[in-house]
Parts: sequence; structure tokens; C-alpha cells
Amino acid sequence: MTRGEARRPPQEFDRVLSSMCTTPHPAAREAAQAFLATNPGDPETYPAVAERERDAVALLGEIVGLSSPHGYIAAGGTEANLQAVRAARNRADADAVNVVAPASAHFSFQKAADVLGVELRLAPTDGDHRADVAAVADLVDGDTAVVVGVAGTTEYGRVDPIPALADIAAGVDANLHVDAAWGGFVLPFTDHDWSFADAPVNTMAIDPHKMGQAPVPAGGFLARDPETLDALAIETPYLESDTQPTLGGTRSGAGVAGALASLRALWPDGYREQYERTQGNAEYLAAELAARGYDVVDPELPLVAADMPDAEFQALREEGWRISRTASDALRVVCMPHVTREMLAAFLDDVDALA
Amino acid sequence: MTRGEARRPPQEFDRVLSSMCTTPHPAAREAAQAFLATNPGDPETYPAVAERERDAVALLGEIVGLSSPHGYIAAGGTEANLQAVRAARNRADADAVNVVAPASAHFSFQKAADVLGVELRLAPTDGDHRADVAAVADLVDGDTAVVVGVAGTTEYGRVDPIPALADIAAGVDANLHVDAAWGGFVLPFTDHDWSFADAPVNTMAIDPHKMGQAPVPAGGFLARDPETLDALAIETPYLESDTQPTLGGTRSGAGVAGALASLRALWPDGYREQYERTQGNAEYLAAELAARGYDVVDPELPLVAADMPDAEFQALREEGWRISRTASDALRVVCMPHVTREMLAAFLDDVDALA
Repeated sequence: MTRGEARRPPQEFDRVLSSMCTTPHPAAREAAQAFLATNPGDPETYPAVAERERDAVALLGEIVGLSSPHGYIAAGGTEANLQAVRAARNRADADAVNVVAPASAHFSFQKAADVLGVELRLAPTDGDHRADVAAVADLVDGDTAVVVGVAGTTEYGRVDPIPALADIAAGVDANLHVDAAWGGFVLPFTDHDWSFADAPVNTMAIDPHKMGQAPVPAGGFLARDPETLDALAIETPYLESDTQPTLGGTRSGAGVAGALASLRALWPDGYREQYERTQGNAEYLAAELAARGYDVVDPELPLVAADMPDAEFQALREEGWRISRTASDALRVVCMPHVTREMLAAFLDDVDALA
Repeated sequence: MTRGEARRPPQEFDRVLSSMCTTPHPAAREAAQAFLATNPGDPETYPAVAERERDAVALLGEIVGLSSPHGYIAAGGTEANLQAVRAARNRADADAVNVVAPASAHFSFQKAADVLGVELRLAPTDGDHRADVAAVADLVDGDTAVVVGVAGTTEYGRVDPIPALADIAAGVDANLHVDAAWGGFVLPFTDHDWSFADAPVNTMAIDPHKMGQAPVPAGGFLARDPETLDALAIETPYLESDTQPTLGGTRSGAGVAGALASLRALWPDGYREQYERTQGNAEYLAAELAARGYDVVDPELPLVAADMPDAEFQALREEGWRISRTASDALRVVCMPHVTREMLAAFLDDVDALA
């Protein structure tokens, strides 16, 4: 029996280097706390949070280059990716559809494939961890419902060639989905082609609760056309609204209100400053690790990967550092907003102490 | 452009009669606020919230009659219902499985059927809004993966004959899933047969964020056997854990910590007192409506349904009452913990003022 025992306090972020979550913006935390008991899934009962959701989607539209965005605040990137595949599957003519994604795609596409009963075809990445366009072109066929491009991969922070992937998708009459769950709040300040304005993208995942500094759970699912949401709609007999396109039923009002508050506080100048700071931190860490002889992957976005022997990795975890590894066992440090230059210097001190 | 405009405050609950959400217990609200930035989906980075999730599942096990429960805190009842169908589908031999549920089942089963690509067969209810056992028996066959029973229906608060439905499921080697998303926190104090202890139930939905007084999002997905979660597991390459059975990836630490706090504060005595109070309120409202000539469905659990002309319903909504209707247009009032006798008296005053 566990009742009455002392429990550990919530995670402090001063040694968290592995997470794509972060400390929320103060305004977002305050808004989330005020809306903990509301449900945007029932807009006729909770109109104030439903209004905030419309405003949050409009602001997300500005970020991703859509003047009339269709979408909603999802539970996270997994839901947004799954819903993109589901909408494409539901609109496809074929009985047995497939999804073509780079091998660098997040494991939520494995989950979506199992849940939705579709075939997931993974194309190898090129020597710089981006989708290999020729390999993607080889895998698509008439049963391909959606091609996935990643704008900020989970393991290496790489941006796939979105316009080229869009051409391939168009060639087989498939949707193009962009997973910008992590990258979407930094990419507007780079030269990458990734958005609805840069290519004929159909759907996108972009998570306020990652680089957007919103509290969990706040993902974003956005679509260019209203037909995408229509393809997801289920009738809702006992609610005073008619249909529901979301994967969840009751949803987090805290996530919606928190997302809107962080967007209002930070878009665009706050996010621009955050990008410059976090990118600078990633370049600092990469240079320091390289100077110590580690093989480092160039940080195109604020994420550093570097080869590190397992014994060193484990010793750093024992020092309390929350670090993680890629599938090929490279150390992976995500330079989220809470990761300061001082934290990285302290981490490097502990790396040096291993020698 | 909406930035800078004044916005409506969060929903007050003093006129909310339609929702299955409620004001959280103060301890649950406090715990949720402390965990807004944590992610139980990444237990190696956030061990404190992962520990709380294990404790919450153990306490839910006590409520539902499972000494070794397998499960997790889901985003809500929709996820729990979907995961029950997904696990049963994944473990079934058949290529094209079906799900048999009463017509009173929540619309999340329609959603699950669309998402998962399974056939949903709906059996009519009997004269008292419960699953018609003979009709369910007629619909099952060798391709039935799961039979659904509802323990506290969304529209009428009815409890299906769970042991009889379990017999039917066993006869075709199908799972039995019980949707106690709303009813699970009141049924322990009634004589109904509904739990894992009462019948060979395989899986259950029970939502702390409904009658459990936890903040949103906090659902519960529970299974008798570990194989159920195994059937849902997806590999997680870049996390320091190995697999993930949940539908979401990043999940709400606030929901987990809030659920545990409400369970610790209220199980069992607080929930028993809550049941007695809310049930008493439902019986009061039912009697008062009947005395005014409305045709009222006997409130077996704390939920009242009554026929009401559309003009009256709309007039009451215009007075600010958050009320909703069943699919057959009956007024539906859910006597959640925040619904007081004084609120119901004020509502009845407004009903009287319509005359």
C-alpha cells in the first residue's frame, strides 16, 4: 500500500537534456491552471475554451503559412500524425492503402500504422539523415494515401526536402503530411522550405507543448482543406454540437488555453529570440564535444547528436543527467528553451570528469 | 486579428448540468498544477510522474476489483474504449473482426470502429435502456473480437447485465470490455454487478476526470492480463524505455498526478459520500420534474432524463443553463459532484417560470 508515503517532487528541469517538453511560459502556465476543468470537446457547454481553440488555430496558421487553417489543438504529435494518416486513408479509393515515410520518421507512424491497419513503407535516409528522395519515389504507388516528410527529426533535427516529397506525393495523387511537431516553432526563422506556403502540403503536426513553450498536452493538427476534417468527423448524439473530428472525446482545456497564451506571448518575436538562443546553445555544445574528440552531427536545428561510448553515457545518467540515445546509440541532447548555456557547461564539466 | 482582445473567463460550473466533467478536488488541482510540464510517456526522464501513474493504477485496481491491474492513465474514456477494441482486434485470429455493443454505447465506439477499421454491430436496448441480451447473442459470431457492456450509460445512466454479456463473449471466445468511464466511481457503492470481481471482464474504461474529481485529462484503461498491453506495444527507439502501449506519445503529467491525488483523497469514503449526495440530488430532481408532469426516466445512477418540449429546452439554455439532450431529444441532467441541491432548485425555479 502506497498511500501516505512521501513521493518524489515533480521533475526539475536543470538536468533534463533528452526531452522535447520544456518549462512552460509563465502566462501559459497561468492560463492552463485556470482551465484545468474545462473541455473543448464540448464547445456548447464550454464556449470560452472553444473560442480560445479557434484563436490558437488561427495563430498556428500564421506560423505555418495558412491564411485559413482547418484544425484543432490535439493531445500531441502522435495524435496529429495519426489523424493525418487516418484522413488520407479515409479519403483514398484503395482498400489497402500504404504510407511512405523516411526511416527517420517518429515511431508514432509505427503506432498509426498498427492502429489504422495501413502498411508503413520506410525509405532509407541519405548520408545526412534526410529522406532519400529517390528511395521515397521508388516506394510510392497507386495505393499510397500519404507521403510523410519530417521538418525537424526527433533524432538528428534534420529537415526533409519537403517540396521534392510533395512532387512525389502529387505524382501518385497522395497527400503530403509534414511532421513539424518539434521543428515548427523554430523553422519560421530559418531558410528551410517546410511550410504550407513553401509547398503543396496537405496536413501538418506542430506541437505547442514542445518548442512552443505550452504545457502538456498541446499538439497541433492543421490541414489546408476542410475536407480533411470532414473525413474524420463522427456524429455526437448527446452533445449540442453535431460532429467531432478529434481522436479524443473529452479534451484538455488547460492544453488549449495554455497553447493560446504561449502563442500570444511569444509569436513571433519571442520565438525568434528563443530560436537564436537555443540554436546558439546547440552550436556551442557541438563545438565543445567536437573539441573533445567526439564525432558530432552538425546541429542544423537546436539538437545535438554525438557518438559516445556506453560506459560514459551510463556514468552521465548516474550523475542525474536526463540524456537519451538514438536508435544507433548516439548521445542526443535537445536544446529546449529550459536548456541554458550554464547547464551545458555543467554537463561538459561532468563529461570532462569522466576522463 | 484577435490578439489583445478581452476573452471570456473559464466556464463557471454554477449552471453546468450537461457535462460529465466537474470541478476537481482541491488536492487534485494542486497536484496537476505542479506536474503541468511532465510527461509520463517518457518514464526514464520523468520518474516521479511514472511512479505516481503506477500508484494511481493500483488504486483504480482496488475500485474495479483487480488485485494486479495492468493499465495506465489514458487521455479519457474514448482512448480507453479504443484501446480495448484495438487490443482485442490485434489478438484475434480473424482478418475482419467485429465489435458487438448495445445501441446505448458511447459514440467513441463509432470513432474506434472508424479508426481501427472494424465493424461495429449495435444491439437494441430493452424497454429500460439496457443492452438486450438476446439481441447481443444474435449479433456475435466467430469474428467477434469483443463484446461491450456499459456500466453507467451516457444518456440514461443504465448498467448493462455484465455477467450475461460475459457469458455471451466467452461463448465465441471474445473479450468482454466494460465501459465504466462515468459509472466506475459510483458503482462500488451500489449492488450492481459490473466489476472484474463480478464477472470475467477483460478490460475496462474508468475515468478519474469524470466522477473521480480529477482534472482533465485523466482516463483509466485497465486490463486483467498483461497480454492486453503487450498487444498494444510499439517500440520506442529514442526513449530509454523499450515499448509504449499507450495511444498517445507525450502524455499529461498533470492528469496522472491529479488522478492520484483525487484517488488518495477520496477513495473510498469520499467517493461513497459523493455517491450518496449525487444520487440523492438525482432522485430529488426526478421527483420534482415528475411532480410537474414531465415524463422522467427513473435515475438508477446520478443522471436524470426527462421528456421536455424543445421550446422549453431552448428557453432554459437561453437562461444560461448548460443542458443537453439524448438522441431521442430527452432533457439530460448529470448530477456531477459540483451540482448542488441549490443549483437544482434554481433550475426548477426557471422551469416554473416558463409556465
